[in-house]
Amino acid sequence: MARPITFLSDYGYADEFAGVCRAVIARIAPDAEVIDLTHGIRRHAVAEGAAVLARALPYAAPGIHLAVVDPGVGSERRAVAVRTREDDRILVGPDNGLLAPAIERFGGALAAADVSLSPFRLEPVSATFHGRDVFAPIAARLAIGETLVDAGEAVDPGLLVALEGQQEPRVQEGKVVAHVVYVDRYGNAALDLSHEQIPETGLRLGRRLRVRAGGGAARDAVYGLTFGDAGAGELILYEDSYRVLGLAVNRGSAAEALGLEPGTEITLEAA
Amino acid sequence: MARPITFLSDYGYADEFAGVCRAVIARIAPDAEVIDLTHGIRRHAVAEGAAVLARALPYAAPGIHLAVVDPGVGSERRAVAVRTREDDRILVGPDNGLLAPAIERFGGALAAADVSLSPFRLEPVSATFHGRDVFAPIAARLAIGETLVDAGEAVDPGLLVALEGQQEPRVQEGKVVAHVVYVDRYGNAALDLSHEQIPETGLRLGRRLRVRAGGGAARDAVYGLTFGDAGAGELILYEDSYRVLGLAVNRGSAAEALGLEPGTEITLEAA
Amino acid sequence: MARPITFLSDYGYADEFAGVCRAVIARIAPDAEVIDLTHGIRRHAVAEGAAVLARALPYAAPGIHLAVVDPGVGSERRAVAVRTREDDRILVGPDNGLLAPAIERFGGALAAADVSLSPFRLEPVSATFHGRDVFAPIAARLAIGETLVDAGEAVDPGLLVALEGQQEPRVQEGKVVAHVVYVDRYGNAALDLSHEQIPETGLRLGRRLRVRAGGGAARDAVYGLTFGDAGAGELILYEDSYRVLGLAVNRGSAAEALGLEPGTEITLEAA
Repeated sequence: MARPITFLSDYGYADEFAGVCRAVIARIAPDAEVIDLTHGIRRHAVAEGAAVLARALPYAAPGIHLAVVDPGVGSERRAVAVRTREDDRILVGPDNGLLAPAIERFGGALAAADVSLSPFRLEPVSATFHGRDVFAPIAARLAIGETLVDAGEAVDPGLLVALEGQQEPRVQEGKVVAHVVYVDRYGNAALDLSHEQIPETGLRLGRRLRVRAGGGAARDAVYGLTFGDAGAGELILYEDSYRVLGLAVNRGSAAEALGLEPGTEITLEAA
Repeated sequence: MARPITFLSDYGYADEFAGVCRAVIARIAPDAEVIDLTHGIRRHAVAEGAAVLARALPYAAPGIHLAVVDPGVGSERRAVAVRTREDDRILVGPDNGLLAPAIERFGGALAAADVSLSPFRLEPVSATFHGRDVFAPIAARLAIGETLVDAGEAVDPGLLVALEGQQEPRVQEGKVVAHVVYVDRYGNAALDLSHEQIPETGLRLGRRLRVRAGGGAARDAVYGLTFGDAGAGELILYEDSYRVLGLAVNRGSAAEALGLEPGTEITLEAA
Repeated sequence: MARPITFLSDYGYADEFAGVCRAVIARIAPDAEVIDLTHGIRRHAVAEGAAVLARALPYAAPGIHLAVVDPGVGSERRAVAVRTREDDRILVGPDNGLLAPAIERFGGALAAADVSLSPFRLEPVSATFHGRDVFAPIAARLAIGETLVDAGEAVDPGLLVALEGQQEPRVQEGKVVAHVVYVDRYGNAALDLSHEQIPETGLRLGRRLRVRAGGGAARDAVYGLTFGDAGAGELILYEDSYRVLGLAVNRGSAAEALGLEPGTEITLEAA
């Protein structure tokens, strides 16, 4: 029986790119279930795709996890398939950091293959659409039981490319400096910070705090459990559904109110 | 064999929210077919979601019907699963009126369960993503044969929340006053009015009429059968594909031309 | 076993139109795999839908290919099902040219049926949603083995409607005049021109050329193999993933930079 496949990309919905990849998969692995996680990652936004992939995969059954956000398609970047230490998951995509946080979440890489010249590719391979010609057919072949060994050349898992530009939150003088990792459709911003990382700052659940975004003015907010803990239009710091801290505006958009985007520096301070 | 599942939400396509719910369903009920009706309902637009769900479900096979437009997530609103009198359909979603018109369409509720604390939930349950943690897993468990009784606590079907703000069309002095229920991608507006409700007003198929939207000026229109009965750019009143009356502009957008949105009051009068 | 179905339309993702068609298909042919190629074709853009369908289908398994971009719904245009000479594919959609380039790609039409009054339609048939009431149920019935003969009245394949407004590229005085066929999400523009059609013009891979779009000023570009052959922000002429020539801006949008849309005339000249 075929293993299930998840699929995430920045192909969007206006074009047929994701659909054609699914057609390629269906032709090779007609019995494999394919779940589109999203194709709405912003164009070439590798870090955003990486964040979404890492937080989504724990909810998916172990299987083949295809991900394509690939600004370097056609250049020297490797195409890879990576088996995780835990759960026997295989991630397939460009070796540009996109897969790295998800791999980390499952204990790191147990084995990896460079599939750039894989015999499983669709010939002739185009220079610009490796989702269709490289990644999708390889994911499909792995789903029907082909092995990493046959998919490409073994690569030292330690040599996989890390995600660039990752920052670390830091605590200094009672303040926490964190960063926006992802902004969703509702304008809620996920930070690179968890509840456990802020005990010594004076920030307390149910208490008010001050939030500064980038170089903007400080704003009042409440540290609550859910949107309803803030009044309508009020800013709230909360543990989001993926168990990291997030900023939201109850029935509004934190991203609009504070001008948030991935990478924005956020300073949190007890009021 | 698993029952089929339909899925409607306001999660949009930019994020992975709908995809993660589908991953959760696939993990529990890998054999269940899942049909995405749409995830394009406008954010928190409960009445729009309700209208779309009610008109779409008669075209879907009886099964489990998951719907999530949930501005009150994390508050006291109930999560429910409701069995309809006709067709043995089970609707799963927040008890905020979203499901009400669809339930009505299948003869009303035969039985209902409060699944807010269901044993079928995904633990730990987040405060803000009940689609993933509550509704999707419960829909999946019901699809593989679990019962309403086991899904949660019985609720008197008469106590389910009705959809707020529903208006009734009315006939007065030869005029009909109706309301926009839904505006689609093409700018066509569905009204809360059917052909059968307007016999005594002098409005006749093939005849011209005058249309006033909100406080706007009166506009000429034709009462026709299909877009082609109006000239290009001309306003038409017609029976739409769901058998309610709608306003359209042939090869144009009635919503743009008249400034229509859900709730807009529409006055129709024979010319 | 049911044949696989692909589905392309201009229904978009905001409404339930594509989802309802899928629900109709699932009810008739629950075992048929359905692949959404895209529902993001621009409203009523028959030529764009035709271009996308023709380039996508060679990647899909032979089966039933449903396509709906149908500005003339409810008018006299025929609804058709067409069997191709090669591959035993059956295309289903409006007879307005949408299917023509795809049919051509598989050797032309072997047989065709006018399904406007097919017994397989969903009764009552609406005037405005033939995707749901005509095309989807007919595609589903064909997928489970019903025949063209039973689906409708035989039509002379030579009488199928051709795609209107198709232009031909031409070589004149060392210049090539081509046209934009499709602009994708990334702003890359596919032309109605292949590498093989331009040998006598002095245009050479790796060499610079001048590109003029519509009445605009001439722009420098490079004729390369992949985006990386141009500097960031630089214009490139390249063979795209579907083996036709395209214009792109490396890490930018050619459509924005040059004001491209389907039909825009493009003049290429060696620099």
